[in-house]
Amino acid sequence: MSQDAVPARGRRDAAVTVTDEVVSSFAETRDPRLREVLSSLVHHLHAFAEEVQLSEREWHQAVEFLTRVGHTTTDDRQEFILLSDVLGLSMLTIGLNQPEGGGVTEATVFGPFFVPGSPRIPLGGDVAGDPPGEPCWLEGTVRDEEGRPVAGARVEVWQADDEGLYDVQREGAPTSGRGHLFTDEQGGYRFWTVRPSPYPIPDDGPVGDLLRATGRSPMRPAHVHFMISADGYRTLVTHVFAAGDPHMATDAVFGVRSSLITEFAERAPGPAPDGSAMEAPWYEASFDFVLARDA
Amino acid sequence: MSQDAVPARGRRDAAVTVTDEVVSSFAETRDPRLREVLSSLVHHLHAFAEEVQLSEREWHQAVEFLTRVGHTTTDDRQEFILLSDVLGLSMLTIGLNQPEGGGVTEATVFGPFFVPGSPRIPLGGDVAGDPPGEPCWLEGTVRDEEGRPVAGARVEVWQADDEGLYDVQREGAPTSGRGHLFTDEQGGYRFWTVRPSPYPIPDDGPVGDLLRATGRSPMRPAHVHFMISADGYRTLVTHVFAAGDPHMATDAVFGVRSSLITEFAERAPGPAPDGSAMEAPWYEASFDFVLARDA
Repeated sequence: MSQDAVPARGRRDAAVTVTDEVVSSFAETRDPRLREVLSSLVHHLHAFAEEVQLSEREWHQAVEFLTRVGHTTTDDRQEFILLSDVLGLSMLTIGLNQPEGGGVTEATVFGPFFVPGSPRIPLGGDVAGDPPGEPCWLEGTVRDEEGRPVAGARVEVWQADDEGLYDVQREGAPTSGRGHLFTDEQGGYRFWTVRPSPYPIPDDGPVGDLLRATGRSPMRPAHVHFMISADGYRTLVTHVFAAGDPHMATDAVFGVRSSLITEFAERAPGPAPDGSAMEAPWYEASFDFVLARDA
Repeated sequence: MSQDAVPARGRRDAAVTVTDEVVSSFAETRDPRLREVLSSLVHHLHAFAEEVQLSEREWHQAVEFLTRVGHTTTDDRQEFILLSDVLGLSMLTIGLNQPEGGGVTEATVFGPFFVPGSPRIPLGGDVAGDPPGEPCWLEGTVRDEEGRPVAGARVEVWQADDEGLYDVQREGAPTSGRGHLFTDEQGGYRFWTVRPSPYPIPDDGPVGDLLRATGRSPMRPAHVHFMISADGYRTLVTHVFAAGDPHMATDAVFGVRSSLITEFAERAPGPAPDGSAMEAPWYEASFDFVLARDA
């Protein structure tokens, strides 16, 4: 057998580890940020495998799992995002990118059910579009960190109906439970919708298998999605959660922040804030948003 | 806004981190090993994102990259294994599972080009099957850690030809460069093949893009794959590398171990070890394997 000198790589018994070899291999990376990210990734990935003393069978299972995640991902379904969500990586990343300063409304996961080009509705109009559910009046303000109203902010709303489904989950269904409106001069917004319901994340794929294997619930507590944008401000992607939801402490995607919970109060039949005469019980909630200035 | 109490999860501003929340969510996992592996994975994955302060744009890029890896993976191509290989995770895992004791031959990556059901050849036969390349005689022994011959061990061989291609990479080509034989009573094996050549890993997918972005070569140094199995012994998957290969220090998959390098010596026309009269220059190499007992 030859005693060929193999510089650095290949000297497994020397002080040079596989991890060192891999990190060294990134030395010629043109983009310094890519080099930083990959080097850190390799350090942590290898530290994980060493910590658990990963077996070759487990490595094969991981390859098979990721292959299934890849094959479950289509134009209509993003199983990698779902995986990132249930491992808390999505919320961690959102937290890392949260603007400084305690006053700004906290962001949460974007989720897979946003559809561009939602209908514009007038202030006080109805985004519900007649899905199953109890009527719900939602109102509040959009302000900056100094408390000044943000007029003309675009308030984009989307949510599941009373059966826990988004319109896009019902084949051929018309648009419902989504729309956008613009704040008035006082930064105010208000609209009718239906009271949101808790629902499971799509759990018929490999991520669902992971939840079952770990005894976790696929449920998300009831919420309304908001995306609020205005010139000169950072776009805010968040939810408003309905207080008292039984799934609040076990959100499958770790998206709950206490600052995002508000009461969806039941009201008796009678006059609503917009002057409508309600003949059945209805709900009412309010939430005020604070936007950060663009960096 | 309600002051709903959200136990543990949702109290982002409290001492409980997202990482804690996710690890706690695995509390009901029935298989304790799965719980251990996932908890460690989440700790290291989150530590990575925090260390690099992962941006939301980078998170999206990672999702897109993994989606491409998933969609490049087919029945014929495993891009996740390739990704694991170029990040050194495959070799790290193999190293973690290497049997104790210095005497056993080191393992290396399995690679994507093994095909079950290779032709059986007699001792001293030819696995080459007439692919392009210079004739090469390969011989050696299979022994246990005490130096006793392992008779009847199955020696499975596969390799690229002189153009750096495996038979399965040539559409419709007959089997070549692969076969299996059994060791004799002295643990000996010997066969004709062609001298192996360096070749690139498949680099027309996302893993190839990663190599280019990091200025890395896709090349692997010339090698012959071996898989050696015998009753009572741990199956050994390894390569024998040809000394002097210019890609030895930059193997794209970090598979080289100095203990696996041997001289492929050029010989002048004349008699070969099996008595053949060689009319052109040929090559000769030898390598002795040591198997670990089954645990």
